[in-house]
Amino acid sequence: MGNVDYVYPPANVEASPRVAIPPQQPFITTIKNSLKETFFPDDPLRQFKNQPASRKLVLGLQYVFPIFEWGPRYTLDFLKSDLISGITIASLAIPQGISYAKLANLPPILGLYSSFIPPLVYAMMGSSRDLAVGTVAVASLLTASMLGAEVNATENPTLYLHLAFTATFFAGVFQALLGLFRLGFIVDFLSHATIIGFMAGAATVVCLQQLKGILGLDHFTTGTDMVSVMRSVFSQTHKWRWESGVLGCCFIFFLLITRYFSQKKPKFFWISAMAPLTLVILGSVLVYLTHAEKHGVQVIGELKKGLNPMSFGDLVFVSPYLSTAFKTGIITAIIALAEGIAVGRSFSMFKNYHIDGNKEMIAFGMMNIAGSCTSCYLTTGPFSRSAVNYNAGCKTAVSNIVMAIAVMFTLLFLTPLFHYTPLVVLSAIIIAAMLGLIKYEEAIHLWKVDKFDFVVCMSAYFGVVFGSVVIGLVLALALSVMRVLLFVARPKTFMLGNVPDSMAYRSVEQYTNASNIPGILILEIDAPIYFANSNYLRERIARWIDEEEDRVKASGESSLQYVILNMAAVGNIDTSGISMLDEVKKIIDRRGLKLVLANPGSEVMKKMNKSDLIEKIGQEWIHLTVGEAVGACKFMLHTTKSDPVKEEPGTWNNV
Amino acid sequence: MGNVDYVYPPANVEASPRVAIPPQQPFITTIKNSLKETFFPDDPLRQFKNQPASRKLVLGLQYVFPIFEWGPRYTLDFLKSDLISGITIASLAIPQGISYAKLANLPPILGLYSSFIPPLVYAMMGSSRDLAVGTVAVASLLTASMLGAEVNATENPTLYLHLAFTATFFAGVFQALLGLFRLGFIVDFLSHATIIGFMAGAATVVCLQQLKGILGLDHFTTGTDMVSVMRSVFSQTHKWRWESGVLGCCFIFFLLITRYFSQKKPKFFWISAMAPLTLVILGSVLVYLTHAEKHGVQVIGELKKGLNPMSFGDLVFVSPYLSTAFKTGIITAIIALAEGIAVGRSFSMFKNYHIDGNKEMIAFGMMNIAGSCTSCYLTTGPFSRSAVNYNAGCKTAVSNIVMAIAVMFTLLFLTPLFHYTPLVVLSAIIIAAMLGLIKYEEAIHLWKVDKFDFVVCMSAYFGVVFGSVVIGLVLALALSVMRVLLFVARPKTFMLGNVPDSMAYRSVEQYTNASNIPGILILEIDAPIYFANSNYLRERIARWIDEEEDRVKASGESSLQYVILNMAAVGNIDTSGISMLDEVKKIIDRRGLKLVLANPGSEVMKKMNKSDLIEKIGQEWIHLTVGEAVGACKFMLHTTKSDPVKEEPGTWNNV
Repeated sequence: MGNVDYVYPPANVEASPRVAIPPQQPFITTIKNSLKETFFPDDPLRQFKNQPASRKLVLGLQYVFPIFEWGPRYTLDFLKSDLISGITIASLAIPQGISYAKLANLPPILGLYSSFIPPLVYAMMGSSRDLAVGTVAVASLLTASMLGAEVNATENPTLYLHLAFTATFFAGVFQALLGLFRLGFIVDFLSHATIIGFMAGAATVVCLQQLKGILGLDHFTTGTDMVSVMRSVFSQTHKWRWESGVLGCCFIFFLLITRYFSQKKPKFFWISAMAPLTLVILGSVLVYLTHAEKHGVQVIGELKKGLNPMSFGDLVFVSPYLSTAFKTGIITAIIALAEGIAVGRSFSMFKNYHIDGNKEMIAFGMMNIAGSCTSCYLTTGPFSRSAVNYNAGCKTAVSNIVMAIAVMFTLLFLTPLFHYTPLVVLSAIIIAAMLGLIKYEEAIHLWKVDKFDFVVCMSAYFGVVFGSVVIGLVLALALSVMRVLLFVARPKTFMLGNVPDSMAYRSVEQYTNASNIPGILILEIDAPIYFANSNYLRERIARWIDEEEDRVKASGESSLQYVILNMAAVGNIDTSGISMLDEVKKIIDRRGLKLVLANPGSEVMKKMNKSDLIEKIGQEWIHLTVGEAVGACKFMLHTTKSDPVKEEPGTWNNV
Repeated sequence: MGNVDYVYPPANVEASPRVAIPPQQPFITTIKNSLKETFFPDDPLRQFKNQPASRKLVLGLQYVFPIFEWGPRYTLDFLKSDLISGITIASLAIPQGISYAKLANLPPILGLYSSFIPPLVYAMMGSSRDLAVGTVAVASLLTASMLGAEVNATENPTLYLHLAFTATFFAGVFQALLGLFRLGFIVDFLSHATIIGFMAGAATVVCLQQLKGILGLDHFTTGTDMVSVMRSVFSQTHKWRWESGVLGCCFIFFLLITRYFSQKKPKFFWISAMAPLTLVILGSVLVYLTHAEKHGVQVIGELKKGLNPMSFGDLVFVSPYLSTAFKTGIITAIIALAEGIAVGRSFSMFKNYHIDGNKEMIAFGMMNIAGSCTSCYLTTGPFSRSAVNYNAGCKTAVSNIVMAIAVMFTLLFLTPLFHYTPLVVLSAIIIAAMLGLIKYEEAIHLWKVDKFDFVVCMSAYFGVVFGSVVIGLVLALALSVMRVLLFVARPKTFMLGNVPDSMAYRSVEQYTNASNIPGILILEIDAPIYFANSNYLRERIARWIDEEEDRVKASGESSLQYVILNMAAVGNIDTSGISMLDEVKKIIDRRGLKLVLANPGSEVMKKMNKSDLIEKIGQEWIHLTVGEAVGACKFMLHTTKSDPVKEEPGTWNNV
């Protein structure tokens, strides 16, 4: 600035408070705080503070096993409600379990096993009152497609079964570890848009798979993508069975009608809940009476009587397929967690109680570890079953216990009844359930509110439908993460103007009536200043100044003299960002302008202080608000205008 | 809120301006703008606007070949300066080129070839006036370690050479494409901290590799990590040659002394620039006179006379090693770009001219494509050589042309002179150059200003030194990206208070004297609200309210009634974020409190509007500033206190 001597500070500006440098904290405290916010944002240990040791023990027990917390307060009224809802969900769980086990290419009986042990574990450890535990279609499909890519379930059923148990074991361990190490936020990276697209895609794929059952085909592709399924279906049109097809369509129609009715009149929730079991009974009786199984209608066949056999010895840890089982476990674990946690959270919102995501993960993990040792495969909290549970008026996790007992009875005494159940019924049950997962109106909402979310959703959908489940998931995840990175790499910068009748300075884009101040350019940076954006920001700020100078020159206003950077939205800054500010300061100086900062946050002040940038910019050029910065600049403009030095214009532009 | 009937709006608040919903823009405009900001932040086509076609052609030519822009303005004075600096850097380029080619396990003559063609290409296409083109140690080392892992340079020199050309070709194509598609910002993801750590690590590794030359060892490990190098060195202590070691140490000492002297007195820059060539001449004369090459002192040996042979036919595109060449090309390309662009940018900052990163990438790409066809390997703008160029007073890229001509003369007439140059001289030159890359004082600065950047820097360093160059790079990159993701996944939330003598509301953590307002909790969210943080934010806000209610209860202040969310720093929001706000609104309602928003930005208002959240919250509860929101709340507190309904406290807490 050479010979321009500022008369500073003017009396009226000095009165306003200074921007504070936050009090220095020891390094260890900073680390501790940031770790705490990262891993313990919900502060789960708060209730343990200032309690005697015995109380701590009780609280700890209640923390790990919430049943000890609500158990003592359990009443007869609760039991009545839980009995009704438990029996309702059992009637849904039995046919669904069998169907999904078929979908996973596993013995149908596994679906019943999986509705017995895991719900009992969850009832003790879970904190949701509405979640009904069971297998889910998407995880079943994933198991089939990922394990099936390595081992053929028909040719090598024992190995396939053992790998499925092993995958379930890994899934359980992974889930429990995520919860234990408080890494639950990893699930948050599956955004709402991703899940909608992914679920709809998976539902589409599952429905397509059911064409096998509906059309009564013997041979079918092992691929899950639309192209191979369609090729497989239309290459054997001569083998289609119209009887099976007609039956299937009628069944689906029946299920959809009952669901529509139940949705219209929530009091009759049990109609849609009972419908699958009704169909199973109807179908089985029909087949038994007409001996249709001898005329090509495929039936479930023999189901072994008896409770879950132990399967701990079946887990294979030394196998060429170990990595397949591991990968399957991890991916199904994440998908299952995403669904289970979202379901638990939604219902807890309705009933206004709190769910600890990390604790839920431990519960899910333990239930899957226990399941893998007792002939179950991956379970979680499916939405459909939990919604029925909620509608049936469940009060606590006891409804899961009731369901488990009902399934136990089925396993002990009723399995022979399923011998004649036609497969087409199972296919119809799956399709009807899946159609509810395709939420096109949600996709329309995404399009309306946020185009990028819509793109993420669609990429997940088409990735799953035309590629594979994993491709869809990775695609959507990559896009979502890219969005976050792009937000930081290309932060928005705004020009601010004074909102009329107000002291506030806001984006002239948003407030079209905001007016700019002659001689002063006010910019706002809308993201943390990090390595990823420091080069961009430097160039962008330079361009703002260029454009403003061009505009001023064209309009003949008084020339630009101050650049105010509003740092209110700059949440953090790193060393690249500090260098950037330093360079911006130099660029602005070289143009004969003056850099003024407004409202830097605590992180920014801390780091500017440590790197001596505050001195370079000058403490007196850092203001609490944009308004104050503008006031100070206006004062200076006024002073320098009457300053004789200003009469040589060269001093401003040639320095 | 049931029966509490708000008398709203109060007259004094109504007067203040409303938060604006930004004017609706057509979807296509939004897309266009955001693409423009992402890929054309520097608006490179601005100068073409409103120009006649012939002028556009000239401008276009000047854009692609900046030499047409500055060429016509070239003066004799410039030539004088460029001659001096060109000859100076040639004297550095010749020994360095030979040394680095040896480091890459390539024939030494390639180092000279690479200082001939690429500088000529850069002189025409590059926009930096100070960059001196040449090979660099780190990229040479990378080539050796990545290609060497697949093909042994000693056993199969031809294949190795051809793969090196192919890798250079891929690197050039990749660099040019990055520039062409305006993806230069990818390089920005290599943060300053990453580069410091990475460069220091690579320098350490390169120095360790030179122990072979210094100690005169014949056999040496192909690994680059410290453990294998140390094992290799100390397993053959009996083969160490003390003569060579002593000579090497003297040479290094000489080079360091001259550099130290030149740094102290920048006028004598040429002393340090000439030192390597002096050493080469001295060493060669010494060996020639004493016939030391017959007594075990390794020398360069025969160097072919003549200019670069064409190597276009040597590029191998059908080979089992193609993927290795491709990978090597991509990684060396990124590293080379990072160094070259950073160097170009730094010097343009000093001299106050503009460099277009994307254009530079195209220039680098073209120079490497041309190089790969004329027996050169990867070149970029090394810092050491460019600094010498700058200090020697270069004016334009003509200094590169001068250097190229000097190297051409060397190739045509002087190569036999290098026959007796001892390898230990080359090792000394490399070590002396590398020691300058270990910037420990920068690492200390990182530690002081930003601990996380220090961790990133150290992980890059140790990753390179104990793992490999790629491991170090990936580690640092992953940590840097994780930091960005973590910033978004765990945004800061602050409690705000009124700064004394001001209308401003700021974090009570930063402004320890800021005071809170009884009955009102003011929170600020410091990041965009995305899927990755919406769950966290919901829980965190709930915890803030819990803590505030506990505090209020303990202190006996008037009970909490309003929660103001300051959205000033929320730069963007997605559909998950909108749902989160909706849920927060419900949570707050259920506690009998009222949610008030202050200063939502344009993106937030746009999406809240589209999703009807504005109606749910109520337009009258969205204010322009925190101050106005507080004013409105205070007014309501005052009104409801005298309201008879408020005398039943139950209505507030039991709804």
